[in-house]
Amino acid sequence: MTANDVFSADLPLIEERLKYFFSENNGRFSSAGNAAAYSLLSGGKRIRPVLLLEFYKLCGGKGTGAADFAAAIEMVHTYSLVHDDLPCMDNDDMRRGKPSCHKAFGEDIALLAGDALLTRAFEAAALTEGAASEAVLRAIAVLAEKAGISGMIKGQVMDLMLEKSPAGGGEIKDMYLNKTSCLLEAAAMCGCILAGADSRCVSRAERYAAMLGLAFQIIDDILDCTSDEKILGKPIGSDRKNGKTTYVSLYGLEKARAEAERLSLKAEKILCEFEGDVSALRALTEYLLDRKY
Amino acid sequence: MTANDVFSADLPLIEERLKYFFSENNGRFSSAGNAAAYSLLSGGKRIRPVLLLEFYKLCGGKGTGAADFAAAIEMVHTYSLVHDDLPCMDNDDMRRGKPSCHKAFGEDIALLAGDALLTRAFEAAALTEGAASEAVLRAIAVLAEKAGISGMIKGQVMDLMLEKSPAGGGEIKDMYLNKTSCLLEAAAMCGCILAGADSRCVSRAERYAAMLGLAFQIIDDILDCTSDEKILGKPIGSDRKNGKTTYVSLYGLEKARAEAERLSLKAEKILCEFEGDVSALRALTEYLLDRKY
Repeated sequence: MTANDVFSADLPLIEERLKYFFSENNGRFSSAGNAAAYSLLSGGKRIRPVLLLEFYKLCGGKGTGAADFAAAIEMVHTYSLVHDDLPCMDNDDMRRGKPSCHKAFGEDIALLAGDALLTRAFEAAALTEGAASEAVLRAIAVLAEKAGISGMIKGQVMDLMLEKSPAGGGEIKDMYLNKTSCLLEAAAMCGCILAGADSRCVSRAERYAAMLGLAFQIIDDILDCTSDEKILGKPIGSDRKNGKTTYVSLYGLEKARAEAERLSLKAEKILCEFEGDVSALRALTEYLLDRKY
Repeated sequence: MTANDVFSADLPLIEERLKYFFSENNGRFSSAGNAAAYSLLSGGKRIRPVLLLEFYKLCGGKGTGAADFAAAIEMVHTYSLVHDDLPCMDNDDMRRGKPSCHKAFGEDIALLAGDALLTRAFEAAALTEGAASEAVLRAIAVLAEKAGISGMIKGQVMDLMLEKSPAGGGEIKDMYLNKTSCLLEAAAMCGCILAGADSRCVSRAERYAAMLGLAFQIIDDILDCTSDEKILGKPIGSDRKNGKTTYVSLYGLEKARAEAERLSLKAEKILCEFEGDVSALRALTEYLLDRKY
């Protein structure tokens, strides 16, 4: 199985659910909804919802039952990008080859669009049909915890603070684990939980996604130095411009690449602990290591 | 029963749950959590959680079972204030007699504090113990819908847009119904839903809170012209300064006051449709009409 097969299987459902929850319209006061749709439907890789669906299937989940929760996790990811791009945060003008949300709609509407995405995410999650109510509630609590003040948001705070003072490798790793791994962990864990998996599976999924997230973020660091603006969809060298310490600035390109490979292999090793067919998740892991954008 | 009795009965539990979910600490990267705690624990009236608890009790809910959901709705309210005060929105420097969140912690941390409050709200809601899981999920969906793009956030968009162009009474009323009533509706409805009430009760609670919210917002308009900065905790006359159309600017103080009274009486009349003891909710309704801040 290739990563292309995985995306071909999962993406149509994910895109359909995202469009269901956010579509553009002509109402006079629909600017925040349109801004949310603009950012949500602009062709992200959809790693998090695919991860959720694949862990759901791996643990015995049936059919499209986790689709709304998968859409929810992509909304949480998109809200974090919209708010992160704002002038008071990273002040990024471009995202996925288009003007970032506040450049296209203004700061006030972009702020509200992010809020709307986060709010709608929990509505979509609560509407999940293919799982027991207790499992959906547990998954909502996990998503909120991993996205919140002791997870992704803590990572954002670390990012802001470490930009202002020189940071060491341990701090950068800890920041990546919060900023990037946490939401991937939520995706993997919620897939298992919704399928009714036991706590050992959920904790395996969490460990897998922690490694995957670290590798993912290091590859992001590398692409920020080596990619092409047209392929990446945003300016190259923004980390250096912003004075950010990254794995590349700390260890150099070669060692950073080797570390990403090591972490990716660790993630694959954890996959072997599962009993079912992990070929889709293995293909996804390798694809993320070799991606060009 | 007086409003004081109601607050005395409900506030200790609400404050205890809010402190449980957000407490200040000394961690190096805890600034967003501390900023959230600063705004959340700075003495709001707690109308929404009290409303939720009272409807929960009215519909037969037992003990402290809805406490976490009540805390959740206050977190949603507080996040909306924190983001609404930001420079790209209303740009307000004072809130509840203290510097607003971004004045105390900076714009970036205030943005993340609002995000953290909204995220943690759904975590708290999902942890609700005193109700069936199906009911908790339904309540989460209602809360998200009323707080989202077709509710409170739509009201914020209307507020921004109507500030830039002269607005009529119908538009202002519609804006108030979204901006202020929607979250009160969520509080009242979720109280009923968590107690296992039938859909007729839930819809009655919704109609009650729609009227209460309109009256509440008109009283806010009046207080913005007539109150004392020290009592109100924020500058007087900010609506006029911001060029906002309000019930007072449209109809004058006297007619605005009469309309608030009419709406408050309508709300009380809807309470009479319930079978149980509505004296607490009646006292609360009258207190909100006569409040000085």
